[in-house]
Amino acid sequence: MTSRMELLSSLAVENLTKMVLLVVDGLGGLPGPKGLTELESARTPHLDELAARGETGLLEMMGPGVTVGSGPGHLALFGYGPDCPVGRGVIEALGVEAPVAPGDVCARGNLCRIGEREIVVDRRAGRISTERSRRVLERLQREMGPIDGVSVALHPAEDHRFVAVFSGPDLDFRLSDADPQKEGRAFRECRPLVPQASFTASVVNAFLARTREILDGDPEVSGCLLRGFSTRPDLPTLEELYKTRSAALAAYPMYRGLARLVGMEVLEAGPRPKDLFHAVQAYWDDYDFFFIHVKTPHLRGEDGDFAGKVRALEAFDEDLPILVDLQPTVLAVTGDHSTPSLLRGHSWHPVPLLFFSPYGRPDDVISFGERVCARGGLGRMDASGLMGLMLAHALRLMKYGA
Amino acid sequence: MTSRMELLSSLAVENLTKMVLLVVDGLGGLPGPKGLTELESARTPHLDELAARGETGLLEMMGPGVTVGSGPGHLALFGYGPDCPVGRGVIEALGVEAPVAPGDVCARGNLCRIGEREIVVDRRAGRISTERSRRVLERLQREMGPIDGVSVALHPAEDHRFVAVFSGPDLDFRLSDADPQKEGRAFRECRPLVPQASFTASVVNAFLARTREILDGDPEVSGCLLRGFSTRPDLPTLEELYKTRSAALAAYPMYRGLARLVGMEVLEAGPRPKDLFHAVQAYWDDYDFFFIHVKTPHLRGEDGDFAGKVRALEAFDEDLPILVDLQPTVLAVTGDHSTPSLLRGHSWHPVPLLFFSPYGRPDDVISFGERVCARGGLGRMDASGLMGLMLAHALRLMKYGA
Repeated sequence: MTSRMELLSSLAVENLTKMVLLVVDGLGGLPGPKGLTELESARTPHLDELAARGETGLLEMMGPGVTVGSGPGHLALFGYGPDCPVGRGVIEALGVEAPVAPGDVCARGNLCRIGEREIVVDRRAGRISTERSRRVLERLQREMGPIDGVSVALHPAEDHRFVAVFSGPDLDFRLSDADPQKEGRAFRECRPLVPQASFTASVVNAFLARTREILDGDPEVSGCLLRGFSTRPDLPTLEELYKTRSAALAAYPMYRGLARLVGMEVLEAGPRPKDLFHAVQAYWDDYDFFFIHVKTPHLRGEDGDFAGKVRALEAFDEDLPILVDLQPTVLAVTGDHSTPSLLRGHSWHPVPLLFFSPYGRPDDVISFGERVCARGGLGRMDASGLMGLMLAHALRLMKYGA
Repeated sequence: MTSRMELLSSLAVENLTKMVLLVVDGLGGLPGPKGLTELESARTPHLDELAARGETGLLEMMGPGVTVGSGPGHLALFGYGPDCPVGRGVIEALGVEAPVAPGDVCARGNLCRIGEREIVVDRRAGRISTERSRRVLERLQREMGPIDGVSVALHPAEDHRFVAVFSGPDLDFRLSDADPQKEGRAFRECRPLVPQASFTASVVNAFLARTREILDGDPEVSGCLLRGFSTRPDLPTLEELYKTRSAALAAYPMYRGLARLVGMEVLEAGPRPKDLFHAVQAYWDDYDFFFIHVKTPHLRGEDGDFAGKVRALEAFDEDLPILVDLQPTVLAVTGDHSTPSLLRGHSWHPVPLLFFSPYGRPDDVISFGERVCARGGLGRMDASGLMGLMLAHALRLMKYGA
């Protein structure tokens, strides 16, 4: 826990206000052919109206130049700064809804092909299909059995990717990657980074060896690589920290998992923005903090589909009044990272923030876009500062010191 | 001492420049009925002229969303960041001009009424008058006597409030509050938070018990509550840090106390801005750093009196030429926190900063207000960075590194 979280926590009080954090995945972008970004190009009258009535700014997710994944991006928005890291293995496990108990060690895995002299000739086993990968993992799961009292659960992800969860007593995640990172290099076992992890290293390496025995003879897939060993972090929940009853509306497993990690109740709803917003409406009286995750703009950005991202933003704007009509005390609209179509992936660019509350100083920004937000009244702030700002505007923080 | 203070201190040199820090208590506000804040509404030609010639920005007192009290607010402006906390008991003691020697333990007190089964039925003893409260405290002081070699001094504050200062050897302030915080709960003694504080806890609890014996039979006031146990912090003075001879002009005890805490000389002057400014004029040759505290805008904000706060700002602007005509090398005008009339109290909103020196880069802001300052050339900065900026513009900091 950071000292800022401790400070906010010591000041937090309960009241009847409602806070909504609307995360538009991959919200930020870069200029397209006509010089405007996706968000600047999109016709978003409802966002623009909120921008005109509220305040705007830019969020730095993890300092200048750092491109964050969805895990650290969301955790920052929830107020858990870079001092509360969550391992990649765990985030990946959340993404495939793999159960991870306290003490379990997770890792991201690749099915791969290992050739002569232990050389990893293809780190992705020819990018084999999700379906074929699933069958291979089922076979491994069937034939593997526990290793020195440690059970291993294998969960397929996309293509050649999977998640391995090791469960048993005395495990320690502090291991080096069992992955040469580049093709043409020799396969490598994991090493314990601290003496306490020696037992876990021996189990993991036995698992890797056993995998190669089981797959012996398969021309395509002859082994696997593991990286990002990590364990479920023991984060204080939002309720413990700030006395808020929090709920998450998110269609994708990873975001549901991230929400659970900070103690949110995950509610059921369809995947479209209007489904999510209607669900908030249905549960309005039961919680005081709502996290809503809208996925499509990121997917179109990742496809490099500029027009598609523009349409996805317009579609979500159309449904926005469902949420606005609930009259939340504080409404923050932002993203967990930028996904410019130009880069076809996550980027480091700061993310636009739209902030609405009765206690703001409305700035002169009257539309929602990256460059107008750069001149907004909230300035450029660390994403991990947003939660404190939402609590303050909901009058949920006492004064510090006399 | 923070690493930044150490760095600045290592670079500080003396010269003949003059620096003025003018703190307008509760300066920042929120839009009123016409959409403008108190400061934006006020006719302040002299501030506007300074803004046009100088630079502007916004100060974050303690990170986004945190509302600071006057203690941490002023300490931040003096360059003592959140790593130099000062306990509430001490700040309160400064506020009533209670002498506090190194090692003394102070606490904020409430006279209260305790009923059947030790239940605190009224934490404020019916909000008894300051006058009646003073008589009760005098009686307690007269009849109490030392406890195990520790003397107790009781200082009346407003209404039911007072400050207790425990003086004697081997005291330790690390005690839990002797206050159930809410009415209807049982009275509670203080507990030592560390073993070294056991003796102090026994003295404080004996004091609380003795208080109830003395007041036995009084239908209104039957005991007291104590909270915020703290001791005088051992802060390095501004002179030790930056080689400045500093003076404070402040009419209210708390600000005089805060100034003394960082080693300023506290000068005598009347309460009106013009009295304070004339005093600066009178002592101009004797000091090189002047801290001036103007109180009225905060009081009107706390009353929820928008028009009154506007008038208070206009009144202080009228007298400003007295100060400007002294031609300080550096003049900073800001506040220790915002006090919007809308919220009738301290708030978390960043505070406008007006900064004038011969070595600035004047921005295009030509009036003094919250929202123009948000676009000012100094941007949004941590309040604890201001002192370094003032020293730099006064050419009092050497280069760091070759």
